[in-house]
Amino acid sequence: MTSEQRKSFGSDNHAGAHPAVLSALMTASAGDATAYGDDPLTREVIAALRAEFGAAEAFFVFGGTAANVLGLGLMLRPFEAVICAESAHLNGDECGAAERVLGSKLLTVPAPGGKLTPDLIASRLAGRGNSHRAQPRAVEIAQATEVGTCYTLDELRAISDFCRSSGLLLYVDGARLANAAAYLDCTLADLAAHADVLSFGGTKNGAMGAEAVIVMNEPLAAAMPFQRMQLMQLASKMRFLAAQFGALLDGELWRANAAHANAMARRLAEGAAGVPGFRLAHPVQANAVFGVLRRDQVDALQRDWNFYVWAEEGGEESVVRWMTAFDTTPAHVDAFAAAIRETAPRASQPVA
Amino acid sequence: MTSEQRKSFGSDNHAGAHPAVLSALMTASAGDATAYGDDPLTREVIAALRAEFGAAEAFFVFGGTAANVLGLGLMLRPFEAVICAESAHLNGDECGAAERVLGSKLLTVPAPGGKLTPDLIASRLAGRGNSHRAQPRAVEIAQATEVGTCYTLDELRAISDFCRSSGLLLYVDGARLANAAAYLDCTLADLAAHADVLSFGGTKNGAMGAEAVIVMNEPLAAAMPFQRMQLMQLASKMRFLAAQFGALLDGELWRANAAHANAMARRLAEGAAGVPGFRLAHPVQANAVFGVLRRDQVDALQRDWNFYVWAEEGGEESVVRWMTAFDTTPAHVDAFAAAIRETAPRASQPVA
Amino acid sequence: MTSEQRKSFGSDNHAGAHPAVLSALMTASAGDATAYGDDPLTREVIAALRAEFGAAEAFFVFGGTAANVLGLGLMLRPFEAVICAESAHLNGDECGAAERVLGSKLLTVPAPGGKLTPDLIASRLAGRGNSHRAQPRAVEIAQATEVGTCYTLDELRAISDFCRSSGLLLYVDGARLANAAAYLDCTLADLAAHADVLSFGGTKNGAMGAEAVIVMNEPLAAAMPFQRMQLMQLASKMRFLAAQFGALLDGELWRANAAHANAMARRLAEGAAGVPGFRLAHPVQANAVFGVLRRDQVDALQRDWNFYVWAEEGGEESVVRWMTAFDTTPAHVDAFAAAIRETAPRASQPVA
Amino acid sequence: MTSEQRKSFGSDNHAGAHPAVLSALMTASAGDATAYGDDPLTREVIAALRAEFGAAEAFFVFGGTAANVLGLGLMLRPFEAVICAESAHLNGDECGAAERVLGSKLLTVPAPGGKLTPDLIASRLAGRGNSHRAQPRAVEIAQATEVGTCYTLDELRAISDFCRSSGLLLYVDGARLANAAAYLDCTLADLAAHADVLSFGGTKNGAMGAEAVIVMNEPLAAAMPFQRMQLMQLASKMRFLAAQFGALLDGELWRANAAHANAMARRLAEGAAGVPGFRLAHPVQANAVFGVLRRDQVDALQRDWNFYVWAEEGGEESVVRWMTAFDTTPAHVDAFAAAIRETAPRASQPVA
Repeated sequence: MTSEQRKSFGSDNHAGAHPAVLSALMTASAGDATAYGDDPLTREVIAALRAEFGAAEAFFVFGGTAANVLGLGLMLRPFEAVICAESAHLNGDECGAAERVLGSKLLTVPAPGGKLTPDLIASRLAGRGNSHRAQPRAVEIAQATEVGTCYTLDELRAISDFCRSSGLLLYVDGARLANAAAYLDCTLADLAAHADVLSFGGTKNGAMGAEAVIVMNEPLAAAMPFQRMQLMQLASKMRFLAAQFGALLDGELWRANAAHANAMARRLAEGAAGVPGFRLAHPVQANAVFGVLRRDQVDALQRDWNFYVWAEEGGEESVVRWMTAFDTTPAHVDAFAAAIRETAPRASQPVA
Repeated sequence: MTSEQRKSFGSDNHAGAHPAVLSALMTASAGDATAYGDDPLTREVIAALRAEFGAAEAFFVFGGTAANVLGLGLMLRPFEAVICAESAHLNGDECGAAERVLGSKLLTVPAPGGKLTPDLIASRLAGRGNSHRAQPRAVEIAQATEVGTCYTLDELRAISDFCRSSGLLLYVDGARLANAAAYLDCTLADLAAHADVLSFGGTKNGAMGAEAVIVMNEPLAAAMPFQRMQLMQLASKMRFLAAQFGALLDGELWRANAAHANAMARRLAEGAAGVPGFRLAHPVQANAVFGVLRRDQVDALQRDWNFYVWAEEGGEESVVRWMTAFDTTPAHVDAFAAAIRETAPRASQPVA
Repeated sequence: MTSEQRKSFGSDNHAGAHPAVLSALMTASAGDATAYGDDPLTREVIAALRAEFGAAEAFFVFGGTAANVLGLGLMLRPFEAVICAESAHLNGDECGAAERVLGSKLLTVPAPGGKLTPDLIASRLAGRGNSHRAQPRAVEIAQATEVGTCYTLDELRAISDFCRSSGLLLYVDGARLANAAAYLDCTLADLAAHADVLSFGGTKNGAMGAEAVIVMNEPLAAAMPFQRMQLMQLASKMRFLAAQFGALLDGELWRANAAHANAMARRLAEGAAGVPGFRLAHPVQANAVFGVLRRDQVDALQRDWNFYVWAEEGGEESVVRWMTAFDTTPAHVDAFAAAIRETAPRASQPVA
Repeated sequence: MTSEQRKSFGSDNHAGAHPAVLSALMTASAGDATAYGDDPLTREVIAALRAEFGAAEAFFVFGGTAANVLGLGLMLRPFEAVICAESAHLNGDECGAAERVLGSKLLTVPAPGGKLTPDLIASRLAGRGNSHRAQPRAVEIAQATEVGTCYTLDELRAISDFCRSSGLLLYVDGARLANAAAYLDCTLADLAAHADVLSFGGTKNGAMGAEAVIVMNEPLAAAMPFQRMQLMQLASKMRFLAAQFGALLDGELWRANAAHANAMARRLAEGAAGVPGFRLAHPVQANAVFGVLRRDQVDALQRDWNFYVWAEEGGEESVVRWMTAFDTTPAHVDAFAAAIRETAPRASQPVA
């Protein structure tokens, strides 16, 4: 196996597009279609999304950062703030998009396992009504989280109840919502019921590049068409975003892709379990394995395999992220797990 | 011919994607690729674009409004303003994106035929150095313009010379740059040489959805990677934007597509010429026919054909826009021209 | 009379503060007061302002541009636009503050005499509901206007009625509202009744530096405390802004100051009337004379007198602005009028 | 002594204006002065400020938040971030002004005693060059800090050296710079030498309402006139801001006021020392005493005295802030100290 043939465990967006998505794009390309979403295919897929989520409205945008910013943009005036985990993609990986585009402050909380709780949210509510403080108005959580964990439905309900009783709106970053639904074996509507607005990611789950903003809280939806255009997220040939979601919704391909990726992550965690020097950093629930490895093991592995170091631990250790995708195969995983095992320090060899 | 079979003359973005673009997307999808542009295909197509334009850098974004805003964003601080035509897409059709995203004021000028001149630009230069006035810093022109006309190379040079001698930077909205290059029978580099930054549109010329920002003035490029991420225009699976431009650059497909669309517009203008009640509103140079028709003719035509009324003239007339695309055929044009001719008032009928 | 002794006709903000304002500041300075407006004097003056205007709320800010931006900020989301006169201070003299701070587009109309009408407003309403267009949501007018004219109460009512029936909110830039009330001989409440939000200028009418934002439309007021802080307009020692308005409200000093300044402008217009080469550019209603003079007359006058050229006319003429203030005296005016008369071309000299 | 007669220890901005400031305002009011800073008094005071600081330029603004935002605004593009203490006024008490107005992200660090160090700054430098991360470009510190401590000149130099060697610009929030200079017994230039831009607060030190932005790094100054107007901080009657600083600079009144306030804080700390239940939370260096008290003591004291609880400690304790001003007298302090002592639990009374 050459380096080129080794599957990347760097990210679920290192994968290409699923064949069904490609095929849907071919089909969608035939003939004319009115631009900007006023076409039959877009209408049909939007209707399917609304049905799937029990949603008031659904809108396509180009990427996950845009989904987050535009979703939150339906909720916030610039002096209103978002409570989120320090580890939120929104906070650490979007180059300050929310601050620039919305003008809103992020009120961050260290969140174990990447998950907020009512108590953690409550810890950032001081200063309401005080004009010197940005006013908490929205809570942002990721489902699945950035470290591959999932909120249970009970945890979601607790957060949602807390938000509703505290005058807070709830936004869910669902870049990997499919992986969470697959892990929890629930419907998308089960997850969405707790949110005011959420995103539903296609790109990391087999699409070429398409995300949806799902609005559960109907009055929030009215501003979206204008906001989407002003914030440069209105596709002219919208049918090509719609087609990708059409393919993912068809026969619940989204679930099959996500369940497969999740299973590959579990297989990888099992393959690495017991390797000296390795331990899990977080439970493996969605399609990522976050593990702790010694730095020399990381160095050895990265010579042949593509993945990211997430953080440096104290001492000699690193936290690594290994992600799986819809197209990761058991053979890919097994080859990688074998490589991981090879990084373990050998016990002294028995004398023959 | 049923209504469904009639080609839309509503916009060049009513067309699907060119087969070569679709094919390139299929090919690009195979295997893994590092995200966010750090992949071989993206590097290769960027290199090809830089060579084609003689450019310092090239960046892919999702849409034309984004290209305009991000391109201008390389040039402007928020207290600096853009001089543009009142008819600029930037001014009238982007929902105030430049004002919101950049914070910059647009200083508009009525521009006959959609084209600025050094004199028109000079008319908006009052107040430089006066802190009460937004400071003119960039000039924005569209090539081809929003009304289907093209700046000649001499006109471009005159504007460019004026800008350089006046401390102004020049941005060219090239959503239909290919059509202009085809009309002028020049290279993309010939056009780009006059600009500091320009866009190169793929979407209206056979792509599925991809635009490029081309930076000629090298020091302006350094901010782009961060700005593109912060402004929600960084594609994770970048190879799929690159692949579209790869297909368009291959064998100058961009030129063939544009030249064909331009030819179809000329054919349509010729087909409509002489129809009583019809006259051209602007010369037909790129892939649009802007014509003046009586309202009853417009109403009759719109029963079966898809196109937009651009403006209402005084009296009984409307300005209409008919656009052609890479996939408009002579048969499409001839059928539409026949329909136009049918709207002409009949000569008095012979008495039976 | 030396040059230093000549009164400036350059602007009403070339004057110092009225003695009653200075005295009120002295008085207000005694003892402690809780900061940020939570003090008895601020409460008292706010109550007086609310009573005077029949207003829901009143807020102090530092300057006129801030009043305009924060007043409009109560009405607008970034994709919503403001219809205003091309000659609006908001458009031409605030360095693009509204665009930057609010993100909103200004939809300008050439307005004869600086005054909008329902028809002019209606001319900018195209594209409502079209996501490609910034959505008209507020109308901004200045009372008095930037060229010294005043809307009659009937004109205000017509605009107000039009706005209410068209889903538009009305903001009135009242940097010189006192001058308009004095000219129209009406109450501040008479003027305010037509607005949703307006400003009430102190600085140009004898204050040291203080403006008020008056909110008539109660639900709009709730965002102001936060917006004012976030936009850097919350005074810590608020009592000193309140004191200035306290002095201006006391015994209607605001009206006396404004009426006097208006009278001085009329006196100046009368003094200049009939001077060869001079004519009025606009009716003299508030405290400004806008006149047309030959350039050589302007040059001659500006050697000794301080005033601004407003615009260059074609040919040999300029439009000049002469402003009067609360402290302009009849003697100041008469001396200036005499100087104006001296610029007139002499009748041919008798031969000796 | 009635409650009204008790001096507030709530904030140094609860004080009025110093008599010399009031007197300077009276004097400045005489006669005309060209607006927006083009007047002799403004020029003279600006020259004096430049000399005092060894600065390239100085600009007046209305308040401390504006000084911070505009000062940082000279340094930052929106994708560039500010490293600051979690306890920074900029972060916690300005309602998200920096995020909204500049679009920039704040990268906060828990900072013991309110003070950053090179190591703390270095801890937020990860991700430079990574387009997913806002790019650290400026460091913000407060001198004196928000908790009444002062950076020594050596500490400032260490930070400054670190910034310069790390491609970072240094902004100093000098709302209480005078108090720091008085504490350190150094010149303003000694402090300013370490900054690229800093603010110099007047309002908390005897002014009515005036702050200065001092630019040490000359090329950064060019944008200020436009930025100040666009961000609503250009005073029309600028002489009245200049006059306040003129009075504070005259005979180093700024230093006398600050030294006095600092001395009153020390006297208060000494008066409270040894009271059972009380301990200092931070060293007393500038004009604030941050102390820890039992809640029942706080409640008892707040019945008669005006001051703020800064934070709740675990258990039964609160952190309180007691601030002194230029007009706090020894008698005020002694009365308050006596009241503090009375909150101490009495030892069991001797039997008579």
